[in-house]
Amino acid sequence: MLPRGRPRVLGAAALLLLLILIGFFLFGGDLACERREQRGRGSFPCALTPRVPPDGDPSVDHPGHNRSDCVPLLPPPPPKCELLHVAIVCAGHNTSREVITLVKSILFYRKNPLHLHLVTDEVARNILEMLFHTWMVPAVRFSFYDADELKPQVSWIPNKHYSGLYGLMKLVLPGALPPDLARVIVLDTDVTFASDIAELWALFAHFSDEQVIGLVENQSDWYLGNLWRNHRPWPALGRGFNTGVILLRLDRLRQVGWEQMWKLTATQELLTLPATSLADQDIFNAVIKGHPGLVQPLPCVWNVQLSDHTLAERCYSEAADLKVIHWNSPKKLRVKNKHVEFFRNFYLTFLEYDGNLLRRGLFGCPSPPSPEAEQLQRALAQLSEEDACFEFRQQQLTVHRVHITFLPHEPPPPRPHDVTLVAQLSMDRLQMLEALCRHWPGPMSLALYLTDAEAQQFLHFVEASAVLSARQNVAYHVVYREGPLYPINQLRNVALAQALTPYVFLSDIDFLPSYSLYDYLRASIEQLELGSERKAALVVPAFETLHYHFSFPSSKAELLALLDNGSLYTFRYHEWPRGYAPTDYARWREAQAPYRVQWAADYEPYVVVPRDCPRYDPRFVGFGWNKVAHIVELDAQEYELLVLPEAFTIHLPHTPSLDISRFRSSPTYRDCLQALKEEFHQDLSRHYGAAALKYLTALQQPGGSA
Amino acid sequence: MLPRGRPRVLGAAALLLLLILIGFFLFGGDLACERREQRGRGSFPCALTPRVPPDGDPSVDHPGHNRSDCVPLLPPPPPKCELLHVAIVCAGHNTSREVITLVKSILFYRKNPLHLHLVTDEVARNILEMLFHTWMVPAVRFSFYDADELKPQVSWIPNKHYSGLYGLMKLVLPGALPPDLARVIVLDTDVTFASDIAELWALFAHFSDEQVIGLVENQSDWYLGNLWRNHRPWPALGRGFNTGVILLRLDRLRQVGWEQMWKLTATQELLTLPATSLADQDIFNAVIKGHPGLVQPLPCVWNVQLSDHTLAERCYSEAADLKVIHWNSPKKLRVKNKHVEFFRNFYLTFLEYDGNLLRRGLFGCPSPPSPEAEQLQRALAQLSEEDACFEFRQQQLTVHRVHITFLPHEPPPPRPHDVTLVAQLSMDRLQMLEALCRHWPGPMSLALYLTDAEAQQFLHFVEASAVLSARQNVAYHVVYREGPLYPINQLRNVALAQALTPYVFLSDIDFLPSYSLYDYLRASIEQLELGSERKAALVVPAFETLHYHFSFPSSKAELLALLDNGSLYTFRYHEWPRGYAPTDYARWREAQAPYRVQWAADYEPYVVVPRDCPRYDPRFVGFGWNKVAHIVELDAQEYELLVLPEAFTIHLPHTPSLDISRFRSSPTYRDCLQALKEEFHQDLSRHYGAAALKYLTALQQPGGSA
Repeated sequence: MLPRGRPRVLGAAALLLLLILIGFFLFGGDLACERREQRGRGSFPCALTPRVPPDGDPSVDHPGHNRSDCVPLLPPPPPKCELLHVAIVCAGHNTSREVITLVKSILFYRKNPLHLHLVTDEVARNILEMLFHTWMVPAVRFSFYDADELKPQVSWIPNKHYSGLYGLMKLVLPGALPPDLARVIVLDTDVTFASDIAELWALFAHFSDEQVIGLVENQSDWYLGNLWRNHRPWPALGRGFNTGVILLRLDRLRQVGWEQMWKLTATQELLTLPATSLADQDIFNAVIKGHPGLVQPLPCVWNVQLSDHTLAERCYSEAADLKVIHWNSPKKLRVKNKHVEFFRNFYLTFLEYDGNLLRRGLFGCPSPPSPEAEQLQRALAQLSEEDACFEFRQQQLTVHRVHITFLPHEPPPPRPHDVTLVAQLSMDRLQMLEALCRHWPGPMSLALYLTDAEAQQFLHFVEASAVLSARQNVAYHVVYREGPLYPINQLRNVALAQALTPYVFLSDIDFLPSYSLYDYLRASIEQLELGSERKAALVVPAFETLHYHFSFPSSKAELLALLDNGSLYTFRYHEWPRGYAPTDYARWREAQAPYRVQWAADYEPYVVVPRDCPRYDPRFVGFGWNKVAHIVELDAQEYELLVLPEAFTIHLPHTPSLDISRFRSSPTYRDCLQALKEEFHQDLSRHYGAAALKYLTALQQPGGSA
Repeated sequence: MLPRGRPRVLGAAALLLLLILIGFFLFGGDLACERREQRGRGSFPCALTPRVPPDGDPSVDHPGHNRSDCVPLLPPPPPKCELLHVAIVCAGHNTSREVITLVKSILFYRKNPLHLHLVTDEVARNILEMLFHTWMVPAVRFSFYDADELKPQVSWIPNKHYSGLYGLMKLVLPGALPPDLARVIVLDTDVTFASDIAELWALFAHFSDEQVIGLVENQSDWYLGNLWRNHRPWPALGRGFNTGVILLRLDRLRQVGWEQMWKLTATQELLTLPATSLADQDIFNAVIKGHPGLVQPLPCVWNVQLSDHTLAERCYSEAADLKVIHWNSPKKLRVKNKHVEFFRNFYLTFLEYDGNLLRRGLFGCPSPPSPEAEQLQRALAQLSEEDACFEFRQQQLTVHRVHITFLPHEPPPPRPHDVTLVAQLSMDRLQMLEALCRHWPGPMSLALYLTDAEAQQFLHFVEASAVLSARQNVAYHVVYREGPLYPINQLRNVALAQALTPYVFLSDIDFLPSYSLYDYLRASIEQLELGSERKAALVVPAFETLHYHFSFPSSKAELLALLDNGSLYTFRYHEWPRGYAPTDYARWREAQAPYRVQWAADYEPYVVVPRDCPRYDPRFVGFGWNKVAHIVELDAQEYELLVLPEAFTIHLPHTPSLDISRFRSSPTYRDCLQALKEEFHQDLSRHYGAAALKYLTALQQPGGSA
């Protein structure tokens, strides 16, 4: 081994010498670039390699010497109120989460209107479209482009990089983005901004007439080709460039025939190289090697690369002014790096940042609200702070940010009688999830009411649970918290809207269904031929236990035995018998076949209905009447109520929610709930006319309200 | 009324004309200052009033015209790694919370080491000393100065401002701070940084030889004296200056005889004016009026004042680059202002920001850790990630940020037999607080395990509760969350350390004591003469109910009736009888006097002990054995265990904690708990020698561990 080692030692010594020399150029004397007339914001740290004089030759044939420079000696001010365009390629559930952290960091510092161009697969589009729509950030437009349509343009390129085909799609942006779009900043999803993106945009002004691509030098020795024996990277100028952050002059790229250019280069290189190792980055570098005039080197702080063995420290240790951090190691936050704790805390800042706080407008720039935002503002403005129920009315109007399918999820295969369990929860009910998964093997659609920080705790909770990680048919939809009252019906509607099977079981998180319920419901739906004409809601009788340690009955017979010995009760038997009495538990004991029951005031059974059932009334927030109103709607729309003889679900005990505590202790709370109920009945009469009279009559009977 | 009104109309018209003229100066043409050579970070927006030429006369006799200027035409770079000094006057519980948000905003942007000079009353000192000590932010020093000692120097000044005496203390800083301290930035507690404080520090470089105080112009018309008839403000140059942000050249202030100067001025003005309206600010302005050469006007962005009717918009609407936001309206976040939502979201960002993330080091500057931090790092470095119990060991070592007396609190008057109820909780047990307050009228010391955002929710929860807001003898200590396991014994120790009475009742948050327990305990302590020589732990027998709706027994007789009819059980009767059996409930039924019981394995009663009792062993995190180990310690230290015949406490049902769920489902969790127990016993033997043998023997008996 020793003899082999010697050339390496010599090589290392030579490299050391080179580094020292480069170091001299970089940090010795006053070679660091001058910064004058920095009229806007922020300073301008240098690139890794020394600058050329202002009128110097931008030729790039001698990497590390006279190629890269401290580009903008006189950076122009960031453009005030100019619309900035950002393109991001994003696919899948995990990357969609990642991109949100990136976007938060951009929004935190930005002062300009933004247009996000998102090249996505269907999964990411569904997630991000809903998210941005409900986020309602002023002065942010977004457009989606179908990644699947672009696939054929890059799928012929053999590629070994973990970003897969999607990485390569950055190559086809000049053709994919609108033809009148002249400039765009292209970002990888694993970058985090530490500065105003307008400062980056301002660097477009330094492009010479020939330059079309702005890039930061690579901060590793990968392209030097000396990392190991027979390491044969794609061709690049010196260390090459990193494509995590790109400024693209789309107009000029189209003019110079970019598409032909990169395809030709890639085809030629692939004659001798088996595949790309670093996806688009290999091809960008190969093209630049052949056409060095195309590239405008950017200051290294705009893409501080945190891979293992990164040379990034040379950049930021002098500059002390990071602009963009790039987590370009597959290890991401677990990367080993001298300052990784600093970077990780910085990243966590945005990961856990309350995205609602980014709804703030741009006061320096005109940013007309979207029609929805305008309508919302009008409605909010009409509320009176003097109104005792102000909190309720404000909560009803709140538009919550919604992140659907927060974790990877496989949609259930289309089956005509399949049923999704629908429920909602907040952090204090996470413990229920494992048991629920054991009781319900079918698809679930769950809305979680969380803060941004709690969403991360939830993610860790699922990752740490073997039971939960194993399940692909549970869709978790995060609804971000805002306001003092639990928006129970809004949450139910989010979960309901995301159910993908023809039927839904509208449950609550503190219930465990019988082990066989999923199979039994599907069989019942088929038997009762619900699919065709029959409009019915199947009632699942509800029970409760007061014991935390409790042996779940494996059959109706066992359940009845527990009921008889006082271990189980019918649900809310002590506090609210009206809510469940119409199920007729006495009949259910004996029933062998489904039987029809009649609606009665305050009835609130757990039911199975077609997915297109009426939505829950979002005016009911906090505790009380939220389910009752939904059953009224079902009855008003003439759903038959059919009780299933073998179905049951059991409520487990839990600490009373803050909302129920408030309901019990606050007369105002109860008065407001009463007011909401009256308004609900007025709307009901308006909608269903005389047919709705019976609900009002029932309400006015003594004892007719919760 | 009309005739009187006419002069006002004329006055208003004149004011309008003036504003238009000022507006012309401000925004017309290119009068905005040039910004060149902005070598550091950030740009340099102008002051409210137009600049003078670089060599212009800084005389200040014509306010709004040639006084104020865009001070630094060539601002120097912020000083790299220089230690920056910041002074803040802070008193009381609420202001201590406020100052933390300010400090978070400074730490978020800072890149320099900092030295905080905190002039505090005793309350604020206790809070902030503990907070900074446990926060362990690298490169932040802090010194405390006793505000009470400074009071005589300012208490002679009649003052009407809401900041009280403490506001005036800014005047005496040159004498109060160390004599070798030459420069300091003085901040009000209601400012929020939106930039690196080093940029502000860099403005010291622009002070002429004569200048000693850097200030931003006032952004209201207060000092113009025309706000209402007979409005007679203190004298000031034009609009005067705001003292929310001050740069002080302490060295020169001492040289020029600042103390004599301001005292003379104040005395003279107080001959004709009844009192200061704006505390120190009136006096600073009066001094400056007499000695205009002392002041260096600072760019207005360094103190954007959000009072009602503020003129601040003139400042930031042009600059679009806010540096410091000043909530100088008594309305604070509820101030009416065109852009208040933007500012409020900015403020909430830091209010809710996870302060743990600010523990990141300064990588650009050498910042040697404190001895504690170094020791901690060494201990953490010794852990192996391969260890199955890594999570436990890491959690044990975690130093949590602690904010004691988060809300206003009155220490109980010293009484020889008084007892404080000690407990800990997290968000999911907030509902217990009201009931607990109803059952225990005495002092309480409660540790709350919360995130920064949850701490704000907790604050709102208390404010919304009449029961909780009315209580002044409940001290809430926030321990900030970090790590996956609930640090139960660390929390207990925090609450225990903060108890101020001679005795403590070591309870848990899910227990309600009998209504008379507080009085009964005090009487028992007196009767048993615990204060003198007797070393005893008084056992409070524990029961449990499984019902959420439950009528609390008002006497021992009622309790026994409930026990007999099966509505109550002795605590953990079903799951863990060993934990409480030694209390001897059969004997308790009949007992008329306290009786002694013997320690037995796994005994974990709720006890009343002197405040100086042994601390809980912090190695026990999460679920299991945390209380058992403490009782072992008491027994090892020869505390008698005396059961009180009339005392009882009842456990209410609640959802199982995540930790107990993990304990039940994870064999690793149980193995780690076992390992912790063994290590505990080893330490016990080391400490108590042969006397500790009985604990080990008990442990090794079958069934001898949880």
